[in-house]
Amino acid sequence: MGIRRILIANRGEIALRIHRAAHEMGIETVAVHSTADADAMHVRLADHAVCIGPPPAADSYLNVAAIISAAEIAHCDAIHPGYGFLSENAKFAEIVEAHDITWIGPKPEHIVTMGDKVQAKRTAGALGLPLVPGSDGAVSELAEARRIAAEIGYPVIIKAASGGGGRGMKVCVEENSLEALMQQAGSEAKAAFGDATVYIEKYLGNPRHIEFQIFGDGRGNAVHLGERDCSLQRRHQKVLEEAPSPVITEAERARMGEVCARAMADMGYRGAGTIEFLWENGEFYFIEMNTRLQVEHPVTEMITGIDLVREQIRIADGKDLSFSQDDITFTGHAIECRINAEDAFTFAPSPGLVTAYHAAGGMHVRVDSGLYAGYRIPPYYDSMIAKLIVYGRTRERCIMRLRRALEEMVVEGVKTSIPLHQELIRQADVLSGDYSIKWLEEWLQDREG
Amino acid sequence: MGIRRILIANRGEIALRIHRAAHEMGIETVAVHSTADADAMHVRLADHAVCIGPPPAADSYLNVAAIISAAEIAHCDAIHPGYGFLSENAKFAEIVEAHDITWIGPKPEHIVTMGDKVQAKRTAGALGLPLVPGSDGAVSELAEARRIAAEIGYPVIIKAASGGGGRGMKVCVEENSLEALMQQAGSEAKAAFGDATVYIEKYLGNPRHIEFQIFGDGRGNAVHLGERDCSLQRRHQKVLEEAPSPVITEAERARMGEVCARAMADMGYRGAGTIEFLWENGEFYFIEMNTRLQVEHPVTEMITGIDLVREQIRIADGKDLSFSQDDITFTGHAIECRINAEDAFTFAPSPGLVTAYHAAGGMHVRVDSGLYAGYRIPPYYDSMIAKLIVYGRTRERCIMRLRRALEEMVVEGVKTSIPLHQELIRQADVLSGDYSIKWLEEWLQDREG
Repeated sequence: MGIRRILIANRGEIALRIHRAAHEMGIETVAVHSTADADAMHVRLADHAVCIGPPPAADSYLNVAAIISAAEIAHCDAIHPGYGFLSENAKFAEIVEAHDITWIGPKPEHIVTMGDKVQAKRTAGALGLPLVPGSDGAVSELAEARRIAAEIGYPVIIKAASGGGGRGMKVCVEENSLEALMQQAGSEAKAAFGDATVYIEKYLGNPRHIEFQIFGDGRGNAVHLGERDCSLQRRHQKVLEEAPSPVITEAERARMGEVCARAMADMGYRGAGTIEFLWENGEFYFIEMNTRLQVEHPVTEMITGIDLVREQIRIADGKDLSFSQDDITFTGHAIECRINAEDAFTFAPSPGLVTAYHAAGGMHVRVDSGLYAGYRIPPYYDSMIAKLIVYGRTRERCIMRLRRALEEMVVEGVKTSIPLHQELIRQADVLSGDYSIKWLEEWLQDREG
Repeated sequence: MGIRRILIANRGEIALRIHRAAHEMGIETVAVHSTADADAMHVRLADHAVCIGPPPAADSYLNVAAIISAAEIAHCDAIHPGYGFLSENAKFAEIVEAHDITWIGPKPEHIVTMGDKVQAKRTAGALGLPLVPGSDGAVSELAEARRIAAEIGYPVIIKAASGGGGRGMKVCVEENSLEALMQQAGSEAKAAFGDATVYIEKYLGNPRHIEFQIFGDGRGNAVHLGERDCSLQRRHQKVLEEAPSPVITEAERARMGEVCARAMADMGYRGAGTIEFLWENGEFYFIEMNTRLQVEHPVTEMITGIDLVREQIRIADGKDLSFSQDDITFTGHAIECRINAEDAFTFAPSPGLVTAYHAAGGMHVRVDSGLYAGYRIPPYYDSMIAKLIVYGRTRERCIMRLRRALEEMVVEGVKTSIPLHQELIRQADVLSGDYSIKWLEEWLQDREG
């Protein structure tokens, strides 16, 4: 056994999550924290704590030199980066390894590959992951555009090559309007980005966000742990996640999971990773891969019984995967609600003193949170203050349990998104699982209207 | 569906437990409470609350008339008694049923049968449950005593028929000393109870307390949900319980569980029940049956995934068992620590104001508790304030998780038994599962010595 003391290069609930897994393995923890987080729960629970600077994160949680120094001073033999912050910073991973400290994460080269959007898609394609069909580069001639659009089928979307934010983007539903829309897109792109180049892709009108959790040993073995449906999003931020997806059959899970696991095995991927797809009409389309633990990993833990952070630590320590694909079974249903310190409907941040806190409890209810009464939520970081994760034998029972657990959650002193979740899980579309990545924003608009 | 509103005739964590199950089924709850419990968590969470009198329990939680009135005033169609208080009061059950209110518990006649020690043993024996072998009544002649002792095997114990508290009790390890000990026991019994009558039983020197959870539909179908090992006791109070028992094999579980389930089926037992045994050298000996939910039921829920309170409500509502014996599988290991408001080692009660409270969280950790910061623990009731229940794939991992969860539990303002549990789960005998019902008291004595 190599790892004896882990530095946790993160804060909030994920720092606590890592501390818990480490302690359950008999491994000591070192918390690094900003001056704003001196009283945070993970700092209080860690075996040792080192202050690495003031907020904002750039001066502490993103300060590589300070973190490496803390690891050396505190004699840490491993670093877990959590999610966000330095977790997908390949340079940091390399520096950690150069200091003979175990990096609890993927190989740096895989972080690089998957961190670059273009390279990630190319790699994913080469590994057999399904991509959004399209022109594979610029399209300038109408005839070419017609050929490609006919091949991938309408509707298609014309996008500015240098673009973003919806400008220079046109959805074309049938061939007759292709010419006009190509011209419009080109003009808009030229006006917005100084570059009229456009390309064509299949248009997904109402897709879901479905992602597969994978695990590799870095030596050519990999497994998948099923999917998570994270379609309920606002401004690309996930709000509520569930596993399994209400729309994926057992056969689809097995087939797509197998594709993902094989890709990761071929890549020699090490540790935990998530392959994100858009899904529409039974088809998956690769978006990106996150080479780290996800916020929503507990829903997978709930339905598989597997402790993902423990497994990350084991793999980083050079051990084999503690399960084969056949060992992994999926039972019941799990939903996670991200609870943020913000107004439930205006989404205005609400940091400040928590005057009362009571976590939901009882059967099949898990709360991952560093909150406590008397804790002051600092204004410098992400607004997520708790994750409520609930399990049920069926999706229906899971939702009923989630309702009662939300009733029990008490956070006073600051506004939270609990009322949003309470309303959300009473909506017919959510109850029936009939929602896409656009549903939440549309519902919020209707609600206001 | 009959039941729409349940009166919870209890307090503390079990009242909350019942509330949770009811709400997860879409059933409303009515809390009845003493004046001392007006601010209790279950009262705050229930849909309605009715004050039924002052402490002590005799004037409120045991006040049958007040509870029935509350049920009628609040239009409850069912009553759940929890454990303790009126849960094993057959008269109460009858009164409830006479008022056309559904009694969420066994048939009153079975409460009567199992509530009487002598009748319970006779019934258990007739149903095929193994009893402690003995003289089945008074023994006066030495020859008869010799014959019986030889039959059941030494050591035997000679007990005063009118006795209790250890007086007139003699352990005899071999035939040569039988005559003298019979005489001594008889004289002591005469002196203590005015009755020299003695009887003989097999002596269990160092037994474990192992109990089987059973469930019947009241119509001749019954299942078992495996055993719980509750050997860690102090003054007959369970302190820590686990499932499965470290000493029971799968084959033994199946065999003994089958015996229990068949007995309950033959009896036509309805609802949840627990058959308690002493266990020594591979043999089970019936002690008693509890015709109610047990405090320690969550360890069974953890390893089976079955919600026992939900099932109680379903059965009371006339439904069939929601599982057959084959549906019930046992996975992993669970341990429950009873956390009391008392000095961890002197056991002096410590009621009062809870100034800070933080429940342990994270994966596979369950806390059943009505505690919150600002809650005043009243001095009138049982000292148990929380149950910490932890699951792990193996017993070893369960214990490691329990350690870290205990580290996280914060209860300030009152003394608690958390330090006892922290020390307990570091003892070699507890780690190896090598303990009997005498172990904890002996360890506590050694620790003081």
